[in-house]
Amino acid sequence: MAAISETIVRVNYSETDQMGVVYHGRYAVWLDIARTEHLRQAGFSYRDLEEEGARLVVTDLRIRYRKPARYDDLVRIRCWVRESVPRRVVFGYAIEDTATGTLLGTAETALICLDRTHQLSRLPPAVVRALTRSEDPVRL
Amino acid sequence: MAAISETIVRVNYSETDQMGVVYHGRYAVWLDIARTEHLRQAGFSYRDLEEEGARLVVTDLRIRYRKPARYDDLVRIRCWVRESVPRRVVFGYAIEDTATGTLLGTAETALICLDRTHQLSRLPPAVVRALTRSEDPVRL
Amino acid sequence: MAAISETIVRVNYSETDQMGVVYHGRYAVWLDIARTEHLRQAGFSYRDLEEEGARLVVTDLRIRYRKPARYDDLVRIRCWVRESVPRRVVFGYAIEDTATGTLLGTAETALICLDRTHQLSRLPPAVVRALTRSEDPVRL
Amino acid sequence: MAAISETIVRVNYSETDQMGVVYHGRYAVWLDIARTEHLRQAGFSYRDLEEEGARLVVTDLRIRYRKPARYDDLVRIRCWVRESVPRRVVFGYAIEDTATGTLLGTAETALICLDRTHQLSRLPPAVVRALTRSEDPVRL
Repeated sequence: MAAISETIVRVNYSETDQMGVVYHGRYAVWLDIARTEHLRQAGFSYRDLEEEGARLVVTDLRIRYRKPARYDDLVRIRCWVRESVPRRVVFGYAIEDTATGTLLGTAETALICLDRTHQLSRLPPAVVRALTRSEDPVRL
Repeated sequence: MAAISETIVRVNYSETDQMGVVYHGRYAVWLDIARTEHLRQAGFSYRDLEEEGARLVVTDLRIRYRKPARYDDLVRIRCWVRESVPRRVVFGYAIEDTATGTLLGTAETALICLDRTHQLSRLPPAVVRALTRSEDPVRL
Repeated sequence: MAAISETIVRVNYSETDQMGVVYHGRYAVWLDIARTEHLRQAGFSYRDLEEEGARLVVTDLRIRYRKPARYDDLVRIRCWVRESVPRRVVFGYAIEDTATGTLLGTAETALICLDRTHQLSRLPPAVVRALTRSEDPVRL
Repeated sequence: MAAISETIVRVNYSETDQMGVVYHGRYAVWLDIARTEHLRQAGFSYRDLEEEGARLVVTDLRIRYRKPARYDDLVRIRCWVRESVPRRVVFGYAIEDTATGTLLGTAETALICLDRTHQLSRLPPAVVRALTRSEDPVRL
């Protein structure tokens, strides 16, 4: 797989606010969608992972908003692994307008792994192997 | 308790859309908030009910939109029981602008009760006793 | 175009609730997505329509929930026009699990057209012509 | 006014996810609610500000998640101004469980001011005067 995945979302009306742009809080969901697809492209279904008892939990979220996204736009979220250690994985994200290529925002999320008993645990080895680190393609 | 409960919500920016009004899909959440408070005012915590293994599941939702709600408005949701039979309860709702008293919308939700094994079951007797039926205060 | 459109959505984690299924209020957004795609397949961009000053506003929403949708499922929403008169259009929806074909729910929304001054107006003629009526493929 | 405001939100079912806790993306909305109430307690209605043509736009969001919030919990969001310069204001937040006082998370948002023509502008002087800076009551 490519170390940087791409996911496209179409902006729905429910995501806009009365400024006429996408509500800023909505980006956290886009990152979630992109992260799930990144794992899928790396050969993992997060659903399967969770059914096996592991859970990836977001501990840190950081988003920098540059340009607004608008209703009906096709937005591309590029996602990659910035850092992966036994108990923590950090994803980076670049959010772009597909029509113009404009960078709309950048983001980072850190996740830890909890086991069935909600204890901090190591990431499953197969996950670690699949999560190839990548250089940041844009400055976060 | 009064057979008709009242719950106030303040419209947040995240609830608006680019028409400059509250996004219509958001009302389903207001009904949920109002229904939970109705049960609380009747002496039930839905959380406790769920911890005891019962679940109330929405099977039908109907909303009629009359006037838009706007950012920062205080909106009142009146809630009552239209119908309560052993395996089903139907709630009615009137959504009103607190500033003007204008009726913004009306709604109805039907819920059934599932037990721990996800089987259809009777509503717990204490719930049935507490859920006093009321005449509709407005036409739904 | 086919009189019945199809739109696929992938269930995201943000759409689930603690019952382990998709939160019922979320379906209103899926209907919105499906309706927008239906218009697009009929040759209309709702965005363009709105930029020209027309707005389609939901006045009635009705959803019947049959089976739960779950995390990471691919859900198909079939959408069609049940009724179209000069000032009102009614869409029908069937929500289905793509893996099993199971009908998860059905829905109906009525919309009216407002002009630039927020007055009730006729649907633009091109919209009326494109919105071919269809028989209900399932019982709503 | 106190330099640190307090806002209480009750966790609704729609805010939970299938981990049985509040979905992490939901916190951005709580921060928005708290920020609006902070301004209100400082004598400003953000609605009025926006009607006068000014808009406060989030440029940076950072959330650190410590402990999960759960359904029906009453959650307190303390909000304060970390930094306020002519063209930018930074708010800090502490999210706490009201029942136990446990710190659930901390957050920071930076906002800039846009005028009627969407140009970067100075914060209105009355806003600057009202936004008293406060030391961080917790480490962010």
